[in-house]
Amino acid sequence: MNLASLDRAEVASEIARRDGADPLGHLRARFHLPAGAIYLAGNSLGPAPVAAFSDMAVAMREEWAEGLVRSWNDAGWFALVNTLGNRLGRLIGAAPGQTVVCDSVSVNVYKALHAALALRPDRNVIVAEGGSFPTDLYVAEGVAAGRPDLVLKLEGVDAPRIEDLIDERTAVVLVNHVDYKTGELRDMAALNRLIHAKGAVAVWDLCHSAGVVPVDLDGAGADLAIGCTYKYLNCGPGAPAFIYAAARHHDALSQPLSGWWGHAAPFAFERGYRPAGGIQRLLCGTQPILSMRVVDAGLAAIEDVEMSALRAKSLALTDLFMELIEPVCRAHGATIVTPRAHAARGSQVSITFDNGYAAVQALIARGVIGDFRAPDMMRFGFAPAYLGYADVERAAQAFNDVMTSGIWRDERFAKRRAVT
Amino acid sequence: MNLASLDRAEVASEIARRDGADPLGHLRARFHLPAGAIYLAGNSLGPAPVAAFSDMAVAMREEWAEGLVRSWNDAGWFALVNTLGNRLGRLIGAAPGQTVVCDSVSVNVYKALHAALALRPDRNVIVAEGGSFPTDLYVAEGVAAGRPDLVLKLEGVDAPRIEDLIDERTAVVLVNHVDYKTGELRDMAALNRLIHAKGAVAVWDLCHSAGVVPVDLDGAGADLAIGCTYKYLNCGPGAPAFIYAAARHHDALSQPLSGWWGHAAPFAFERGYRPAGGIQRLLCGTQPILSMRVVDAGLAAIEDVEMSALRAKSLALTDLFMELIEPVCRAHGATIVTPRAHAARGSQVSITFDNGYAAVQALIARGVIGDFRAPDMMRFGFAPAYLGYADVERAAQAFNDVMTSGIWRDERFAKRRAVT
Repeated sequence: MNLASLDRAEVASEIARRDGADPLGHLRARFHLPAGAIYLAGNSLGPAPVAAFSDMAVAMREEWAEGLVRSWNDAGWFALVNTLGNRLGRLIGAAPGQTVVCDSVSVNVYKALHAALALRPDRNVIVAEGGSFPTDLYVAEGVAAGRPDLVLKLEGVDAPRIEDLIDERTAVVLVNHVDYKTGELRDMAALNRLIHAKGAVAVWDLCHSAGVVPVDLDGAGADLAIGCTYKYLNCGPGAPAFIYAAARHHDALSQPLSGWWGHAAPFAFERGYRPAGGIQRLLCGTQPILSMRVVDAGLAAIEDVEMSALRAKSLALTDLFMELIEPVCRAHGATIVTPRAHAARGSQVSITFDNGYAAVQALIARGVIGDFRAPDMMRFGFAPAYLGYADVERAAQAFNDVMTSGIWRDERFAKRRAVT
Repeated sequence: MNLASLDRAEVASEIARRDGADPLGHLRARFHLPAGAIYLAGNSLGPAPVAAFSDMAVAMREEWAEGLVRSWNDAGWFALVNTLGNRLGRLIGAAPGQTVVCDSVSVNVYKALHAALALRPDRNVIVAEGGSFPTDLYVAEGVAAGRPDLVLKLEGVDAPRIEDLIDERTAVVLVNHVDYKTGELRDMAALNRLIHAKGAVAVWDLCHSAGVVPVDLDGAGADLAIGCTYKYLNCGPGAPAFIYAAARHHDALSQPLSGWWGHAAPFAFERGYRPAGGIQRLLCGTQPILSMRVVDAGLAAIEDVEMSALRAKSLALTDLFMELIEPVCRAHGATIVTPRAHAARGSQVSITFDNGYAAVQALIARGVIGDFRAPDMMRFGFAPAYLGYADVERAAQAFNDVMTSGIWRDERFAKRRAVT
């Protein structure tokens, strides 16, 4: 239905109808959101699942304070990397035993690149995206610095399309499933086919797709993948990341962060490193258990609904937002850079605007929380688990007001902060 | 005073006198300990500081749930690596700007070894201890695997004493300040002098000394150090670790885990890695903030008393324990392997006993919680912040009862668990 043909009351009625018919409307109660806020920065940091409060109290008072060292066994702390990894795996199309929750995204990129390079010892090119979330590239540089023969080739620098960079010298292709700036979505299966046809290995960064875009790692023939849990998986600020390796690669898996949690018998305290079998080999050191414990609530908040339902609502929300803001964007020099085609985007809407920083601050002042990425990108993430159609309509209204009123010119919105 | 010359009532009176005169007795109230337990496994996992409960509630409900993304600035999340690092630095003799709290011990060993090797590019030997906590060696193996010319030489394997392994080919010496098994303490300043005389770089593992043994990294001329915060610093299960680099090395500092938190301008999202100045360069990825937040309470619980006072009490507690159990050990085939000399030990008492596993289980059944390390080592950590002399006397009494009664032979104590 084209809302442009409706009057204001009819639009409100149609929005209410959509919320009333939303099969995922009950998920909203699983999250704590600040009163009055419309939170469109879940692609940066997801909100707190309500269950996390009581889970954390149990972890603090019962498991740590009362259970102490025995909680490594009795509370399952030591196994969390796997128990949470297997559950998370289900959300990204990974059969059990191929995913562990651990460390940071950056550390896991490092492991994944080394593991991929070890699978292709006769090749010396890492292909990545010039527009990648930068830490992926920074880490790739760190990997390359340790092997003088390694070459890093970037989409947008060495060729316009990543597909044109992949050849017989390519060892590994490090690629983002959803672009953190524009929200563009790659066709994982198609790119994997090309990568494999050239004999290379793929490392997928799922930071901006896990939990909101259907991901089928096993089905798409993925080799390795990494991602974070604190965006659309809502597992807490800086929550431990994850890493996936397809079972067919496990026997040949190796990575240099060979800490004791990746040892075949970590509590035998053997002198020499003997890598564990399977995905365990991608572990390194002791994990931050209190942060890990929140991953449970993050996963629990969405794992009982179908990813296809989350995807359908995500697309409906982003379609609605773009429909409502597009005329105003056009009139005021802002450009929606996120592709319109469903197959080509994730769950965010990105808009370039010269004064995007100030406009985002003006929106935040109105309770619509988006974020900004230099030099001119306004980003709005739409999480179907806790946003409804009325939220989107209110956010669009605020956006249109800010743009048409020019309130972003107010000096209180112009001053940049150290960290955004 | 020799307690052996006193009768039972006189011993009890003397113990009560010591507790009454304890200048650190007030610290006990800062910790939650399970009712009835005497916790001697703080060298494995420290107990919960009471302040951590309310701090975590604030972090969960105010900072995350209400503050959301703005807490990266407003709650100081992004700066925690430094603010906590500087406070922790004071406890280990490090002037501000040389210590960050981040990642795991294993990951930090990896960074420290690479940083040390980069400082000595013309050398190719890593010297370490055969009796090291194994993850240090596992990680050293991982580092060595990436550079075929690197050689790993171990104390106890290649020579009896580490001092005899250090020569003009030595790039780095990786050494534990306190041995995790025996509790032996190294003379850091003396070993640093030898290491530096040979032109090598030292990496100190402070896991079993930070928070309980006076450490003077700056004064002892240390180069690099790493350690954990979940033992005598009581910062929570798997809490983020720390890494130190002396300021004189900062300009030449490099390490391959070049993630975005180590970038000179992490929020500029530049395409190329440009290392930050100073200790920041040893950071990699986003940190687990909820686990990080507990480090505050762990440090606060001991940072307002002098480390010399903690050390004096630690030695008094361990002296007392050894005095009380030694006759029984001798009579029952157990051997105290921790050195008696104050200058030669940390804050734990280790006892070898063929049936040590079962004996530790029997002690745990009596509320005296120690731990066991294969093949035959019973370990008891004495944290002066929350243990008193009466605790030590009760623990010694339980130990003596278990040994003299032979109750450890009971089958319920013999069965090993998957994780100890």
